[in-house]
Amino acid sequence: MPIRTVVWGENVHEQHNAIVARTYPDGMHQCIADTLNEDPDIEATTATLQEPEHGLTEERLARTDVLVWWGHAAHGDVSDLVVDRVCDAVWSGMGLMFLHSAHFAKPFKRLMGSPCNLTWREAGERERLWVTSRNHPITQGLPDSFELEMEEMYGEPFGVPEPLETVFISWFQGGEVFRSGLTYKRGAGNIFYFRPGHETYPTYHDATVQKVLKNGVKWAFNPMVRIAEPNAAPNVPVDTAPEKIEERGPKLHSDGEEGFR
Amino acid sequence: MPIRTVVWGENVHEQHNAIVARTYPDGMHQCIADTLNEDPDIEATTATLQEPEHGLTEERLARTDVLVWWGHAAHGDVSDLVVDRVCDAVWSGMGLMFLHSAHFAKPFKRLMGSPCNLTWREAGERERLWVTSRNHPITQGLPDSFELEMEEMYGEPFGVPEPLETVFISWFQGGEVFRSGLTYKRGAGNIFYFRPGHETYPTYHDATVQKVLKNGVKWAFNPMVRIAEPNAAPNVPVDTAPEKIEERGPKLHSDGEEGFR
Amino acid sequence: MPIRTVVWGENVHEQHNAIVARTYPDGMHQCIADTLNEDPDIEATTATLQEPEHGLTEERLARTDVLVWWGHAAHGDVSDLVVDRVCDAVWSGMGLMFLHSAHFAKPFKRLMGSPCNLTWREAGERERLWVTSRNHPITQGLPDSFELEMEEMYGEPFGVPEPLETVFISWFQGGEVFRSGLTYKRGAGNIFYFRPGHETYPTYHDATVQKVLKNGVKWAFNPMVRIAEPNAAPNVPVDTAPEKIEERGPKLHSDGEEGFR
Amino acid sequence: MPIRTVVWGENVHEQHNAIVARTYPDGMHQCIADTLNEDPDIEATTATLQEPEHGLTEERLARTDVLVWWGHAAHGDVSDLVVDRVCDAVWSGMGLMFLHSAHFAKPFKRLMGSPCNLTWREAGERERLWVTSRNHPITQGLPDSFELEMEEMYGEPFGVPEPLETVFISWFQGGEVFRSGLTYKRGAGNIFYFRPGHETYPTYHDATVQKVLKNGVKWAFNPMVRIAEPNAAPNVPVDTAPEKIEERGPKLHSDGEEGFR
Repeated sequence: MPIRTVVWGENVHEQHNAIVARTYPDGMHQCIADTLNEDPDIEATTATLQEPEHGLTEERLARTDVLVWWGHAAHGDVSDLVVDRVCDAVWSGMGLMFLHSAHFAKPFKRLMGSPCNLTWREAGERERLWVTSRNHPITQGLPDSFELEMEEMYGEPFGVPEPLETVFISWFQGGEVFRSGLTYKRGAGNIFYFRPGHETYPTYHDATVQKVLKNGVKWAFNPMVRIAEPNAAPNVPVDTAPEKIEERGPKLHSDGEEGFR
Repeated sequence: MPIRTVVWGENVHEQHNAIVARTYPDGMHQCIADTLNEDPDIEATTATLQEPEHGLTEERLARTDVLVWWGHAAHGDVSDLVVDRVCDAVWSGMGLMFLHSAHFAKPFKRLMGSPCNLTWREAGERERLWVTSRNHPITQGLPDSFELEMEEMYGEPFGVPEPLETVFISWFQGGEVFRSGLTYKRGAGNIFYFRPGHETYPTYHDATVQKVLKNGVKWAFNPMVRIAEPNAAPNVPVDTAPEKIEERGPKLHSDGEEGFR
Repeated sequence: MPIRTVVWGENVHEQHNAIVARTYPDGMHQCIADTLNEDPDIEATTATLQEPEHGLTEERLARTDVLVWWGHAAHGDVSDLVVDRVCDAVWSGMGLMFLHSAHFAKPFKRLMGSPCNLTWREAGERERLWVTSRNHPITQGLPDSFELEMEEMYGEPFGVPEPLETVFISWFQGGEVFRSGLTYKRGAGNIFYFRPGHETYPTYHDATVQKVLKNGVKWAFNPMVRIAEPNAAPNVPVDTAPEKIEERGPKLHSDGEEGFR
Repeated sequence: MPIRTVVWGENVHEQHNAIVARTYPDGMHQCIADTLNEDPDIEATTATLQEPEHGLTEERLARTDVLVWWGHAAHGDVSDLVVDRVCDAVWSGMGLMFLHSAHFAKPFKRLMGSPCNLTWREAGERERLWVTSRNHPITQGLPDSFELEMEEMYGEPFGVPEPLETVFISWFQGGEVFRSGLTYKRGAGNIFYFRPGHETYPTYHDATVQKVLKNGVKWAFNPMVRIAEPNAAPNVPVDTAPEKIEERGPKLHSDGEEGFR
């Protein structure tokens, strides 16, 4: 069965900016989904901010293996309820790939627990991404480096936790560097942040970027059964302890009681 | 100058439970602060849930080097505004030591970005903590293992991100294990989670635990000047780029504009 | 194509100890290989210390996707040449799963860069392994914990570097704990250390352990083309630099020269 | 008491190359030691390849808190005995800072367990180092980036394990990037790799580089008592097990026996 992927797009610039609309006539999310669908192992659909519940109902997330997130101008419009739902889905095992300006998306900030800030410049400068973890699954089919002739600059320090692995580091023409490919695990879910993708440039039409997107989805996919209650903190009663023990000492809780949250 | 430490206590069980009140007549927070004050390098005061703004005003956090957090029954009563403030302080460089049931405290969950769940049992069983990172500063003066005759059990899987370092792992009489000492960095702030400290047992009167608390504060302390705006994402205009570049290509932003959040 | 796996066995205890010979009549390596061969995705053969070049010629390693290593009494008899060869294979992308007493095997120590020491006791005590990274591929099909009624104890502190992920932690009846499942990446190769497997107990006949062995091989397998020269440190001449630069300043090396090693 | 630091220099280029000799009239090691001695918390001496036992006797390492290592042309001339000794000292708690071409030094390769390879170019190009871990002790007093007008280029992929933390990443004029500041722990010892320092340029006369060297020594220093036998793997007899157990099952070892190595 192919990897059920939902590409979430904010879908704002496409509606208000002629350049973006021309570069991505069906929206950035649709372009990314079309790319992913070229791969027989992936089956991608889309969801957008404007749909009810942003297209991310409980039911839909339950049948989503990997979510892809692009947002920028409207981070603040994303409902906190949906953010909670997305985090729960990740913790239960859904993969999540964050793209470019999604570094400031609510779910990314929530999952990182850090400011996620950086420096930036929109000047159409050259970016060159270098592989820092050879033969990482996300680098399948890539050379040691590849170039994007025009991209927005993101610069260090990038306010994220130390990752599981640093997969790409970018060089920018204007003199900055950036950790452009980072992997994380939160609960049972795999997370991949991938930097390129400024809306005014044709980045998602680039063949190497498209390869990374496909690799990223495959890497983030966890085929195991999702965890039913990813936040559960069950009490283990004395009589079901793995080793036989006698209860003793003062107690606050009565048997089988829920813990405090 | 000593490390300015604030011990935050929820201060609920002490008011409602005779056992806790007897074990910690001035509150758990005061017991911990007294312990820390035995060390000439630390100067500890307290703050509690019941004070205005939970005793954690902007001004106080600005002069706090390390915050210590114990909470349990009233996690939900902690104001989200104060949680945001605490996270900002950590990101700017304040150290934060979370104790025991603070695994479910709002700031811990926010800083971890993960469910932070576990299994538990309150049966007064024996816990033995093993050092897993020899000569880590937090283990200064400790043997390779030490025991607490009666403690609440916390069991794996513990729903936290892979730490920078695993410093302690606990063995429980009833058959479980738990990663009881974990270090993290979020923004410029050092975070230490330390498991022991159930309210109905005299854990914070134990000399070895007290040693860990002192070591933990010293480890979490970052002597560098706090970052003024830990969330800032400054634009770097083309004419101040480290390397001379010419602006080109289509643009969405005008010069010096704020980024989207 | 199935994962080409070689199970390397020291094959010493099997020849000299009646208990081990009875428990593993065809050798521990053969038992492990037979187990792995139950999985249609794996094709396992064996190699032993006593074969020429310990059965690990350059050619054989070149066609090995994952190597499994069990050694104990004869670590010192493993040729340094073969150790170098194994490390090179790992760095080029071969997976390597180390079992039990292989914590002191030459290739493990070489790949870890640390003492790899621990405490131990052979008393047939109960071991219970807890999953610490839920839904990690290595835990596929496992419950949150499983037991081995009789095992040798290994205790912390375990002298290894902080892993990519801690997958299992063991509880021992005698009071110790141990990080029993650890993942690493060295060069392009994935490494998994898995603790259980003392030679006098029937551990590799246990169904759950067998499941972990199969999962471990699949996790360690890297399907990408092996790196031809994993130690190469190529000079990039000025005229092939990604960005046009002019050579300047004093030089030690002449063009295209090999670096020092 | 100041941090007892030994700066180990290969001391070969200084003897054979006029440019290096002019830039570092007393040797690179002496220049680095002089710099470190400006800091009242550090007391630095030197040792060189040419001295008996390379100046690194058992006794000297025992009273060394932090070792600094610069080597290049003569990596192969370093005695394996001394390499073993240096690794043992690190594992027992000695700090070790590796500089520049020491990425291929025997002790670095041994402690990393990986190929430690990279790409390189000697063209006097501009290097700019960016801080990636804000307020890390090693960045004390540094701006977010600093420049070296002429340096040798080192490029990714850098064949090292994922570090504890990535502290610096370099931008090179010719288009490459490199993880230039990396921290590790091996046994009880802290390790810092710092990239800059090609012998034909005046890098160690640069004030910011000098600041990093001082910070690096302080970070690597572990004030705790050194571990006496960092490789010991003691047997824990049944009657001294932390929890009372009865011995059972078949045994290979007799009581109190040494384990195999």
